[in-house]
Amino acid sequence: MGEEDNLKGEEAFKNSYVPKWRNQITIRSVVTSFILSIVFNFIVCKLNFSTGIIPSLNVAAGLLGFAVIKSYTALLNKCRLLKQPFTRQENTVIQTCIVASSGIAFSSGTGSYLLAMSPYISAEVGGGGDTPINTKVLSLGWMIGFLFAVSFVGLFSIMPLRKLMVLKYKLTYPSGTATAHLLNSLHTPKGAKLAKKQVAMLFKSFLGSFSFGFFQWFFNGGDGCGFSSFPTFGLQAFDQKFYFDFSCTYVGVGMICPYIINISLLLGSILSWGIMWPLIEQKKGDWYSAELSAKSLSGIQGYRVFGAIAMMLGDGLYHCISMLLQVAYNLKVQYSKKNEISSSVNPEGDDYQTSELDFDEARRVEYFLKDQIPNWVACTGYVVLATVSIVTVSHIFPPLKWYHVLVAYLIAPVLAFCNAYGCGLTDWSLASNYGKIAIIIFSSWVGLPNGGILAGLVSCGVMMSIVSTASDLMQDFKTGYLTLASPRSMFLSQVIGTAMGCIMSPLIFWFFYKAYTLGDPLGSYPAPYAQVYRGIALLGAKGFSSLPKHCLTLAIILFCTSVLINIIHDLLIRYETKYKIHRYIPNPMALAIPFYLGGYFAIDMCIGSLILFIWEKKNKQKSKDFAPALASGLICGDSLWSVPAAILSLAGAQSPICMKFLSASVNVKVDKFLSGK
Amino acid sequence: MGEEDNLKGEEAFKNSYVPKWRNQITIRSVVTSFILSIVFNFIVCKLNFSTGIIPSLNVAAGLLGFAVIKSYTALLNKCRLLKQPFTRQENTVIQTCIVASSGIAFSSGTGSYLLAMSPYISAEVGGGGDTPINTKVLSLGWMIGFLFAVSFVGLFSIMPLRKLMVLKYKLTYPSGTATAHLLNSLHTPKGAKLAKKQVAMLFKSFLGSFSFGFFQWFFNGGDGCGFSSFPTFGLQAFDQKFYFDFSCTYVGVGMICPYIINISLLLGSILSWGIMWPLIEQKKGDWYSAELSAKSLSGIQGYRVFGAIAMMLGDGLYHCISMLLQVAYNLKVQYSKKNEISSSVNPEGDDYQTSELDFDEARRVEYFLKDQIPNWVACTGYVVLATVSIVTVSHIFPPLKWYHVLVAYLIAPVLAFCNAYGCGLTDWSLASNYGKIAIIIFSSWVGLPNGGILAGLVSCGVMMSIVSTASDLMQDFKTGYLTLASPRSMFLSQVIGTAMGCIMSPLIFWFFYKAYTLGDPLGSYPAPYAQVYRGIALLGAKGFSSLPKHCLTLAIILFCTSVLINIIHDLLIRYETKYKIHRYIPNPMALAIPFYLGGYFAIDMCIGSLILFIWEKKNKQKSKDFAPALASGLICGDSLWSVPAAILSLAGAQSPICMKFLSASVNVKVDKFLSGK
Repeated sequence: MGEEDNLKGEEAFKNSYVPKWRNQITIRSVVTSFILSIVFNFIVCKLNFSTGIIPSLNVAAGLLGFAVIKSYTALLNKCRLLKQPFTRQENTVIQTCIVASSGIAFSSGTGSYLLAMSPYISAEVGGGGDTPINTKVLSLGWMIGFLFAVSFVGLFSIMPLRKLMVLKYKLTYPSGTATAHLLNSLHTPKGAKLAKKQVAMLFKSFLGSFSFGFFQWFFNGGDGCGFSSFPTFGLQAFDQKFYFDFSCTYVGVGMICPYIINISLLLGSILSWGIMWPLIEQKKGDWYSAELSAKSLSGIQGYRVFGAIAMMLGDGLYHCISMLLQVAYNLKVQYSKKNEISSSVNPEGDDYQTSELDFDEARRVEYFLKDQIPNWVACTGYVVLATVSIVTVSHIFPPLKWYHVLVAYLIAPVLAFCNAYGCGLTDWSLASNYGKIAIIIFSSWVGLPNGGILAGLVSCGVMMSIVSTASDLMQDFKTGYLTLASPRSMFLSQVIGTAMGCIMSPLIFWFFYKAYTLGDPLGSYPAPYAQVYRGIALLGAKGFSSLPKHCLTLAIILFCTSVLINIIHDLLIRYETKYKIHRYIPNPMALAIPFYLGGYFAIDMCIGSLILFIWEKKNKQKSKDFAPALASGLICGDSLWSVPAAILSLAGAQSPICMKFLSASVNVKVDKFLSGK
Repeated sequence: MGEEDNLKGEEAFKNSYVPKWRNQITIRSVVTSFILSIVFNFIVCKLNFSTGIIPSLNVAAGLLGFAVIKSYTALLNKCRLLKQPFTRQENTVIQTCIVASSGIAFSSGTGSYLLAMSPYISAEVGGGGDTPINTKVLSLGWMIGFLFAVSFVGLFSIMPLRKLMVLKYKLTYPSGTATAHLLNSLHTPKGAKLAKKQVAMLFKSFLGSFSFGFFQWFFNGGDGCGFSSFPTFGLQAFDQKFYFDFSCTYVGVGMICPYIINISLLLGSILSWGIMWPLIEQKKGDWYSAELSAKSLSGIQGYRVFGAIAMMLGDGLYHCISMLLQVAYNLKVQYSKKNEISSSVNPEGDDYQTSELDFDEARRVEYFLKDQIPNWVACTGYVVLATVSIVTVSHIFPPLKWYHVLVAYLIAPVLAFCNAYGCGLTDWSLASNYGKIAIIIFSSWVGLPNGGILAGLVSCGVMMSIVSTASDLMQDFKTGYLTLASPRSMFLSQVIGTAMGCIMSPLIFWFFYKAYTLGDPLGSYPAPYAQVYRGIALLGAKGFSSLPKHCLTLAIILFCTSVLINIIHDLLIRYETKYKIHRYIPNPMALAIPFYLGGYFAIDMCIGSLILFIWEKKNKQKSKDFAPALASGLICGDSLWSVPAAILSLAGAQSPICMKFLSASVNVKVDKFLSGK
């Protein structure tokens, strides 16, 4: 997939039928989307609660959707009952719906801002923010209501700009384009053959990963038991969170993420857990009280969380500013260009079918413009939804007044546009960065005594939802443009997917929430971002006084380092093109994540990288064709095992065996104890 | 390797140089043989002490020998210092030397009859045989002396018959022929290319297996700790010895052994440990005393050992008789044929270069007859060596009188001929079966009070050494015949190899003997055949009175079953050629081995089979080319790790971590105990 000949392959579909937009959304596609949405919501939820690192699952969604419908239509065809053939447009619709609904699983903040509101995380973070006005007991009802209120606004916010972004600016949207390539290639004969093999690979690795998860379960009978506590590099390294935890999920994630991200994660964990934290722990009793619990943010945990926050904020701020500048510069260039050639080309939006377009483009533009969505619908939609949202949100969260939400909705479309534009250029959605900045602004605006922490977290949700769905929508429009799917069906499918997500995501969250203690740094689901987001809100509401000794210095150093790394990276990209050293500059965000979690998942991911690297060395084409399928299977299988695992946990069933790791000296004692009975 | 075009490929070597016999044995080849002999002695020793199952290591020996000399000559060639090129004859000599020396590791009985003499095994087996006259304290001196006394006799016993067996009877010697194919193909340009890849594969799997052994070591800190105690199928199955013990060695062995052997092992372990032993254990206190130790042969262990002996004896006896009949029948056919065509062909041994021979054969016959070894050398050698041996052996082991040994040496050449002939037909060496029968005969002849057990075990050694080296020698002559190696150099190399083996084998045995408790059924080196061989001797010397209640009935049933299975198998081979059902008849010997040991290594081996099976399904040619190399690497790597492991054990170093497997309920107690301190 993703080859140039597929991109330019509209010729291959010259005589194939493109269904009307209403027929692109079929019952079977909605049902398939529904089922796969549940699957992907589970996956994203599990990732949210484990590390917060969520790779692009587009390939998995595309392949699985294709596999489900294809086997269904093949079956019908055999029984001669098939009425409507399976088209790439329908496939695009399914894919869009799944991405939209699993997008909500991310932007609903069940692993970040929503969880951060809970009294449990609040008590963990402490720091004076643990007051009733600054926490909210989680319950299914208000979560679903809140998500419905905030998630649809984003869809309408920049919808009118789709022609501008896709047709005029010709933004690339790398992920959307790659997905379109995949979908196009799946529906050519040659592609279908490869697809069959890829699907087979996906299912094999799915089964392997699922069974391995199942197998692992039997050895988990107790705390610190089982494969997830395997001290691969010895007990000392294990204490510093360096071990391979046999997680197929993160091996798969490592295969999807770029090498430099995985290396950065590893580097970050070495710098933090290998050097910084051991050094700071030597100051125990001096820099911070020795009697604090291991979870307290006033102790060593504070250095970890605020260190991570500082790096993330530095990175986020740099990217927001650089993206705003980039967008402004690009728009300026676009306009100056247009003015130059305005005499020959009509600048009006609806007239793109000039003679300069080639066959592929002409056909795509034709279908993209066929089914219009009037601008007044979008504008009315935005105003109405925003009003509803302002009322609902301020009602659910008293600390956030109506004018706060109004301000958010006034700024949001601008940021949404910037994010969608930036994402089209760089494939990076900065939604969570805008969210973090929103936390700081609103929590300091409202203030700690008036519930500033809660207000900040809610505003983060409002902002993230808009900004993230907007860029997702535009991404999908690009995919639809390349697969001749109608914008109307895409939009509708996005609406359906969002609605599904708004219901599913809280339900699945609830499922995990009841089965495990989410957010316990020592548990199996540490949900790192919950503490991090609440930490940011605490910073905004209370200022730096909440930090332990010397933590501010450390944070400032890390913040500057983060900005500096970004500057160096961007300068190298611009001025050093010979050796491409910029490829070896670590990613500050990736450096920061293990500050809190430790290195175990970085090791998983590096193993994924290693497998991919060796595979690429051995057979580049094969690894390109099958690695994404293998990785998707690994992620899906292991993540889906978490469903029966959670059910078993809810039912109170315990694993029969405990695989325990004891030092030889402790083992002698235990053996004596056991034989003494 | 092993393709027909290689077999008939003497054309490929038409212009290549065949060195004189003295030049086929070079210093570099002796040094290489010496080093690799140590390696293979270690491997065979380890296998002896673990399960007693020893796969054919010829491919590994051939490949490693080739790799060592080839890299050495390539290096010399680069420095322009190479004087003599590396030929396949030299390679054959190395191979022969290694096989001869590691053959001693097997026939020296360090894992069977020699170990069975030790007071430790004697005390374990008990049954009235635990008297000083029936045991011998092991020491390096007499072991080396004994081996030198008995191991060379076999070489001379049937050497004069080589022309008869190789040229006239044209026996196939499947293993020897396969090795010759390998060596021939290694030295053609196309073969060398493949060989390079095979050697690379061997080294990769060697490294992987070695490192995995190393990794495993860290988790072995205590009894019942580590990967070798992994209750893969749960704790209950583990108690019945069903688990995967992560032994790369036996996964590799499983890949080399035929499917039916591995399936038989699994079947045997299910029948015994899954059905028979649990049923018998219910009779505890009734059939046998409940107070006996788990190791005592009068308890449940007796049923295990004597059950295994019964099956093995049944199988061995059947094979000995059937082979004697087969040999007799074949010889009869040969002679009647010869008489028919005696008018056209000269029946005298030295005149084979008739016009009927094709190019390949003519060339092979020419070189095979070039360097003669006079028959009087062989005869004198046999008589002198036998005399020395009679004196030495009866001196070392007083219970065995000189006339006992003399009788053994009178029967031995006949059995040696039968075995060499049978091996040529079927590739099966029955040396250990002849050995077992010798134990029964001599131990009952001498009688328990006069040291019958010891006498039986020694006679087993005498018999096995002759019979086993004789068939090895003939096998190697066949290899030499096909690679144009001179019989003289082959013989000399065999002598050198045997001498090496006689010194190395006891030394390596000593190394393990000092580092571990060999023969402890619960330890890591249970050396099953030590108990089994002593059990046979006990049966011979004392009769059936040594068996616990109902054990004789069980043994008779098993003995008959074993014979029956063999009869069914042979009848099917003869009369049912359509579906080849005989392929699915289990092997009685393989059924019997797990009776004593349990199923864990059968599971390892079946996993090896499974890997091979999937590989064959995916790519038949590739699996054929590389599976033997992969398997050899796995075996070598893991077995060689046992060297540093034994050294660490001798030095008293302990693994730092204990990976322990506790049931969930016990774990709760342990956690309470650990936190209570």
